[in-house]
Amino acid sequence: MSKIPYKIYLEENEMPKEWYNVRADMKKKPAPILHPGTLKPVTVEDLTPIFCEELAKQELDDTTPYIEIPEEIRNFYRMYRPSPLVRAYCLEEKLQTPAHIYYKFEGNNTSGSHKLNSAIAQAYYAKKQGLKGVTTETGAGQWGTALSMACSYFGLDCQVYMVKCSYEQKPFRREVMRTYGAQVTPSPSMNTNVGRKINAEFPGTTGSLGCAISEAVEAATTQEGYRYVLGSVLSQVLLHQSVIGLETSTALKKYGIKADTIIGCAGGGSNLGGLISPFVGEMLRGEANYEIIAVEPASCPSLTRGKYAYDFCDTGKVCPLAKMYTLGSSFIPSANHAGGLRYHGMSSIVSELYDQGLIKARSVEQTSVFEAATTFARVEGILPAPESSHAIKVAIDEALKCKETGEEKNIVFGLTGTGYFDMYAYKNYNDGTMSDYIPTDAELEKYLSTLPKVD
Amino acid sequence: MSKIPYKIYLEENEMPKEWYNVRADMKKKPAPILHPGTLKPVTVEDLTPIFCEELAKQELDDTTPYIEIPEEIRNFYRMYRPSPLVRAYCLEEKLQTPAHIYYKFEGNNTSGSHKLNSAIAQAYYAKKQGLKGVTTETGAGQWGTALSMACSYFGLDCQVYMVKCSYEQKPFRREVMRTYGAQVTPSPSMNTNVGRKINAEFPGTTGSLGCAISEAVEAATTQEGYRYVLGSVLSQVLLHQSVIGLETSTALKKYGIKADTIIGCAGGGSNLGGLISPFVGEMLRGEANYEIIAVEPASCPSLTRGKYAYDFCDTGKVCPLAKMYTLGSSFIPSANHAGGLRYHGMSSIVSELYDQGLIKARSVEQTSVFEAATTFARVEGILPAPESSHAIKVAIDEALKCKETGEEKNIVFGLTGTGYFDMYAYKNYNDGTMSDYIPTDAELEKYLSTLPKVD
Repeated sequence: MSKIPYKIYLEENEMPKEWYNVRADMKKKPAPILHPGTLKPVTVEDLTPIFCEELAKQELDDTTPYIEIPEEIRNFYRMYRPSPLVRAYCLEEKLQTPAHIYYKFEGNNTSGSHKLNSAIAQAYYAKKQGLKGVTTETGAGQWGTALSMACSYFGLDCQVYMVKCSYEQKPFRREVMRTYGAQVTPSPSMNTNVGRKINAEFPGTTGSLGCAISEAVEAATTQEGYRYVLGSVLSQVLLHQSVIGLETSTALKKYGIKADTIIGCAGGGSNLGGLISPFVGEMLRGEANYEIIAVEPASCPSLTRGKYAYDFCDTGKVCPLAKMYTLGSSFIPSANHAGGLRYHGMSSIVSELYDQGLIKARSVEQTSVFEAATTFARVEGILPAPESSHAIKVAIDEALKCKETGEEKNIVFGLTGTGYFDMYAYKNYNDGTMSDYIPTDAELEKYLSTLPKVD
Repeated sequence: MSKIPYKIYLEENEMPKEWYNVRADMKKKPAPILHPGTLKPVTVEDLTPIFCEELAKQELDDTTPYIEIPEEIRNFYRMYRPSPLVRAYCLEEKLQTPAHIYYKFEGNNTSGSHKLNSAIAQAYYAKKQGLKGVTTETGAGQWGTALSMACSYFGLDCQVYMVKCSYEQKPFRREVMRTYGAQVTPSPSMNTNVGRKINAEFPGTTGSLGCAISEAVEAATTQEGYRYVLGSVLSQVLLHQSVIGLETSTALKKYGIKADTIIGCAGGGSNLGGLISPFVGEMLRGEANYEIIAVEPASCPSLTRGKYAYDFCDTGKVCPLAKMYTLGSSFIPSANHAGGLRYHGMSSIVSELYDQGLIKARSVEQTSVFEAATTFARVEGILPAPESSHAIKVAIDEALKCKETGEEKNIVFGLTGTGYFDMYAYKNYNDGTMSDYIPTDAELEKYLSTLPKVD
């Protein structure tokens, strides 16, 4: 075995040609998503007014294990993939840990994150269907940026509803999207019925992800030739993001490395789900075992403190209902929460895996996250996104445990992206003005008590 | 020969173990740099109060062709190098050109540019000499960021004098430096004699690179255990940056590609000089021939409209004099100029190669540069730095010429970095408020007439 390089890059011909659909290997599948009107499981036909047809099929397909990645998408992937699996030699030395730490780095593209993996797939299917454009929402801005890049590549119109507080705090994110030709509207806006209603009910509101989703869905369904696309939560998105896990698995095998612990941050679950899919597949088929840890912010703790129940995916309640770990569709993390990972729910696949005990979850507070981020940046030379830094925090914690026990564990984590557009949050941390917030049980109960009655 | 991949990554063991010093192959060497007091060629002893000893030696060494890269530096290089040589398939298709376009992408690291290649070397030698810290200046902020990363890695104090207008326009660049533990001071400051003098003479001035250099040099020479480091212009910097050209040359050879045209942007000349060094070496040894084009902004046209003469490297006239293409040490590009490439002079190596006719130069206006940047971003998926986009502009021009002539030229250009901290300039371009400025002959003459009399 040759010495493991700092960065393992696969060859182009080692890149996946198929996505992996972990639902196919799950004996107990994620619960079906329900029509918001009838509360019956949705059909492809129910979804096609909102989603592209091919994506609607992928959303509901829980039996096909491998789905071909169309050549046009693979060509685009080749522009920025394979992404490196990095051996964190410098971090290991800094921590003086016997653990071997690896991270799959998805930030080496202009969108700055893994979101591009699904954005290009969704744009491709929209183009193939002959659509004029797509609508979406964005919070921290990574997804909107990724989608604007993907749409520009295929010549599609791209309309982004950006949560108003992000729109105002992150003018440069918006400018990247504009450079890629997207139209960016602060949400809630006066363009949509739901936006006007929310503005009337909550004058001066700075918006939320759930509300921006409602606006984008309305915009898609009221314009000819448009569909709605979403950057996380959905099973189709986890399918596309499996490219992360497949590359990781191939890279580890190439060097004969067996992962012990796999760690990912979890907001809607797209990165975590994509990273762990092939590994969970091995577990489901009884071929291997892994410790898998989902890391979420203490200020938005859907897995660790939410309920596993049917809930609306958006604040406006126009989207289907999914059974998931949720804090309630009107939950919004406290204003001092920096970065993404602010969704009230969680991917139904990740939720079901968590419920089956195949993955663990841990919540961490943001000052400790930025401390880990700074440590990491200084030794590994990459300034991480706040979201990704949740995984760094737990990877460091686990590596320090190995220091005590002497275990030479192989720890693999997902470094989803870079923090270049999050310097406002870093400034707060550098200035010592960043604070933590953990919602009380009473606060959470207020939202959880309003969950829809389905069963 | 296998099909050329989208991205050519070298293996770690193919990375250079020595830098290449092009001066060793030059029959007519760059003119010696002169002591500002005596106007005699400087010695290593003259330089060591300002520079680290090893760097002073490298600065004056014009005979040793290969200089070993210390292992500690190679270990750091492995964190973000080898950088990919990318085949611009998508840009070629967009332009419908028969030319094959390649770019060496140096932006996949948190400093966002090639500057880290020299920063880590300079920090290493400072550490090795037992220094406490280093001082420097930064304009657009790439160099300061790179140096702060390098110093953080080796545990050195890092004091950055940042041109005041950049300090104010780019708060996030500053924040990245702070995250890496650097002290960032807007220049001209009240910390130094030269800063106080400039502030008194020009109240309200927003500073210049030449002035920030003077401040940083004064800070280095008046604090125990500090030296001054510089991110471009110097021959030592070009030496370190030869890693760009060496990797490019190895990658091209690996796939049997012979470059026809090599293009780089030129401010102080570090990226261009580093990229072209091995190729110029082949030309100097009569082994091959290349068309080499240096691209500079029309608003700061040192090669295309400057004089080849001895001049001060800084506004405060505390640094040695170099023979170079210069616009005069008090020249400052017009306020509407975006990004870097704003230095009044040019590397003495690049200047001498240009004077000998081995390289050509071309100046381009910034709106055309941002137009090229946007085209590139939309098809190649990387949002380029304004500096790098000067090279993109000329690469596109050359590829379009090939479209007319039908030539299948191999065009290689240096993509020095990303523009994530330059969105203010992109906004101006997107809003249509960006303007061009070409200084008149009379304006240039005003500065050129004040060049020091040396010969």
